[in-house]
Amino acid sequence: MPRSVSRRSFTSGAAAAALATPVALSTTGATVTASNDKPQPQPLGEIKRITMYAEAMPDGQLGYGLEPGRPSIPGPLLEMYEGDSMIIKLVNNLDVEASLHPHGVDYDIGNDGTPMTNSAVPPGGSREYVWHSHTPGTRRDGTIQPGSAGYWHYHDHAVGTPHGTGGVRRGLYGGLIVRRRGDKLPDKQFVIVFNDSTINNLTGHGPDFTATLGDRCEVLMITHGELYHTFHMHGHRWADNRTGMLTGVDDPTPIIDNKICGPGDSFGFQFIAGELVGSGRWMYHCHVQSHADMGMAGLLVVTNPNGTVAGEHNAEAMKPTRDAPAHGNH
Amino acid sequence: MPRSVSRRSFTSGAAAAALATPVALSTTGATVTASNDKPQPQPLGEIKRITMYAEAMPDGQLGYGLEPGRPSIPGPLLEMYEGDSMIIKLVNNLDVEASLHPHGVDYDIGNDGTPMTNSAVPPGGSREYVWHSHTPGTRRDGTIQPGSAGYWHYHDHAVGTPHGTGGVRRGLYGGLIVRRRGDKLPDKQFVIVFNDSTINNLTGHGPDFTATLGDRCEVLMITHGELYHTFHMHGHRWADNRTGMLTGVDDPTPIIDNKICGPGDSFGFQFIAGELVGSGRWMYHCHVQSHADMGMAGLLVVTNPNGTVAGEHNAEAMKPTRDAPAHGNH
Amino acid sequence: MPRSVSRRSFTSGAAAAALATPVALSTTGATVTASNDKPQPQPLGEIKRITMYAEAMPDGQLGYGLEPGRPSIPGPLLEMYEGDSMIIKLVNNLDVEASLHPHGVDYDIGNDGTPMTNSAVPPGGSREYVWHSHTPGTRRDGTIQPGSAGYWHYHDHAVGTPHGTGGVRRGLYGGLIVRRRGDKLPDKQFVIVFNDSTINNLTGHGPDFTATLGDRCEVLMITHGELYHTFHMHGHRWADNRTGMLTGVDDPTPIIDNKICGPGDSFGFQFIAGELVGSGRWMYHCHVQSHADMGMAGLLVVTNPNGTVAGEHNAEAMKPTRDAPAHGNH
Ligand SMILES: [Cu+2]
Ligand SMILES: [Cu+2]
Ligand SMILES: [Cu+2]
Repeated sequence: MPRSVSRRSFTSGAAAAALATPVALSTTGATVTASNDKPQPQPLGEIKRITMYAEAMPDGQLGYGLEPGRPSIPGPLLEMYEGDSMIIKLVNNLDVEASLHPHGVDYDIGNDGTPMTNSAVPPGGSREYVWHSHTPGTRRDGTIQPGSAGYWHYHDHAVGTPHGTGGVRRGLYGGLIVRRRGDKLPDKQFVIVFNDSTINNLTGHGPDFTATLGDRCEVLMITHGELYHTFHMHGHRWADNRTGMLTGVDDPTPIIDNKICGPGDSFGFQFIAGELVGSGRWMYHCHVQSHADMGMAGLLVVTNPNGTVAGEHNAEAMKPTRDAPAHGNH
Repeated sequence: MPRSVSRRSFTSGAAAAALATPVALSTTGATVTASNDKPQPQPLGEIKRITMYAEAMPDGQLGYGLEPGRPSIPGPLLEMYEGDSMIIKLVNNLDVEASLHPHGVDYDIGNDGTPMTNSAVPPGGSREYVWHSHTPGTRRDGTIQPGSAGYWHYHDHAVGTPHGTGGVRRGLYGGLIVRRRGDKLPDKQFVIVFNDSTINNLTGHGPDFTATLGDRCEVLMITHGELYHTFHMHGHRWADNRTGMLTGVDDPTPIIDNKICGPGDSFGFQFIAGELVGSGRWMYHCHVQSHADMGMAGLLVVTNPNGTVAGEHNAEAMKPTRDAPAHGNH
Repeated sequence: MPRSVSRRSFTSGAAAAALATPVALSTTGATVTASNDKPQPQPLGEIKRITMYAEAMPDGQLGYGLEPGRPSIPGPLLEMYEGDSMIIKLVNNLDVEASLHPHGVDYDIGNDGTPMTNSAVPPGGSREYVWHSHTPGTRRDGTIQPGSAGYWHYHDHAVGTPHGTGGVRRGLYGGLIVRRRGDKLPDKQFVIVFNDSTINNLTGHGPDFTATLGDRCEVLMITHGELYHTFHMHGHRWADNRTGMLTGVDDPTPIIDNKICGPGDSFGFQFIAGELVGSGRWMYHCHVQSHADMGMAGLLVVTNPNGTVAGEHNAEAMKPTRDAPAHGNH
């Protein structure tokens, strides 16, 4: 697995034993395997314990971090394998109620991370959130119970409004990847969040990412806020399915390089940096024209093995611009 | 098949015989099997006959109903199996032209339900609309003719404008499910329509739905109006395909809990209430932040078998709110 | 393959030989097969050479054309098979910098067609753009390298802003189809571009298309500009995958007749004109209500073999209208 900022804080310890009594992970007294339809015991997974801090930044933005005084936007990228659980202690160093609400994983209602369920954290307080995941299986009625694997995310659901509108706007969000055993692991990972008119809360330009020709890169793309966007990459494409990769040469999944997305959506994919196209400063951007012009664009810099980068670069053209509307269309 | 408000008015009678002379179903004189490419005779299905009434409600909204004086929003949920036909007599009790336009099913141009084809119903008038459906098959050229199965919908295409903008806004829409023989039937069904800033034309809050832990629930999600939305469920997920269910444990279809949708879109899925997460008041909402804050949110209340509901509930937090914009983003 | 405006200008000549030295196609000196992970030599394909002219139209719109003085909106529909390359000389007859940026195909960074890479064309100038495509294969690590097949498009990335906002708005865009050997070829092709509030830059009405009952029709649907849309067809449907066609009767791909799309998105599908529904003037339109009312609608006219068209037609109802807003929703 690639280096990840989140990994170093995972405890690898006596996780399996703890999972045998899953009720102990619950903070509301409900058992973890709540459904009578659960077809088979889950393979024992790891329990990862981390502490996250919700904190303000000097510029008024907010971030989650794995250490006090080190918030980031996006927050730490969290990863787990299907079957693993995470116990996340959220320390709320803000002066308002904040929370942690995940997409994709299993949690009982007491871990919803919302004011509606009284599961947010008061200012200055802390609490544990427990998230589980599971492998796919077949239910007793023959239908498939999907596994948890996916390119997911987490975010605040309390700051500003009970839906976390202020918290998300100011940066309280991050990526969450649940992998299936056997899923290909990337060399490089890029988390890209279109949040209103920003990318990762940067206004006027997106973050640049670097890879070496041939690197297996993974993109986790998340959308937040008010606006819809279309995520586009130059020179690279992906499959529009769970992994972003085809299962065979005849797989009819569409190959795309542009995808519409709205708040709360997330998807991910892997690609080989510069495959068949070579080194270069490859743009990624929102394809909504005014968004691109306002600077919702960044670079994937694919270097040659010797460190050089092919092609010319006109930095001036990357700066935010504005077109004069014509034809009364706008 | 689950209880459905639409089922009680279906005639089950001598349908098969009638289907042998399909031209009799046509209101324009065109034969039903109009294409020369039709590969094989369709299995004989049922012909379901119903009467629908387009009517005004005391509050100025409009609805379709199966009995005079009982319009609802959404209108009756209509269901059929692939191969079935429906003959729907629309009685227009409004004082303006109204119609019935379906998505997904087969109808000749005279049953289009639009002013453009002179197939709307004048005020005080009535007419029959004939919809067919078909099973999948292989065409003579080897390509696949898809079956009609899907999570579809119907709506007015005449009130306010020739596209039914006023009719749809005020409530003239409903769900239409075409099932394939062998498709799993649900215990509970929920029709959720994001229509401008409302859910099912309710402003400030969405409908709440109830299920018992372990119930097989079916969601039919439809979008109408002007706005795009993102449909999100807490604690539950689905597969982004025809049935919302995977075909096998290795099916690469993405599992999602959030989906962007725009006017005219519809999709559906089944899930097991509280599976792996237990009882609780699970929110569903539009994930566009201002939409959620304005009250585009409701509850899926999953009860324990003994009738209790796990978790706490803060009703105050469900009320419409508004965040103070920050950073000039809005 | 069906008649295509673009085909007549393809050179069919000594292409295979040239492809054996792909570096010769590059304009920046990078080799074409830049990635070390490339699993196997590509089958030799054709090299198609065309010249395109970017020109102004009398009404102030802009278009690409295959001959000087004959710009069109959309520009010429370009087609290739996986493995083929195209060398496109762009002659810029505008008085501003313009370019050609493709989606879906392979090109080195010097062929990006953007001001950011100094690969746009100055006013009065010309240059060659080189696009490649490739068949699917298996990489050395066992993962699948997807082929280039898809319903793609090309557009200006320089006029008005470095993202081509002014060029795209005024008409500098076109369709690009990469086919897989064995893909079914259509009888008729329709390129439909939702560009802001226009279809193919026509305001107040979309283009009408004609087919004969039973024709295999192909739609390439592209979106540009600022707005999201939902593409809807009456009486016809498609599969939401690479080809728009199912791979078998049990293929779980959703069948849809309405799809949300945003700027830069493209998709395509084939359908049989009038299959199971017969002749008629079948509407296609954006399903966003105000867009439909403003005239983002056109007709697919399906004629009977004898030239007649079934059904009535109310041309008045196709004219742009506007509904009086109600309930303060708008
Ligand atoms: Cu955007
Ligand atoms: Cu919404
Ligand atoms: Cu539109």
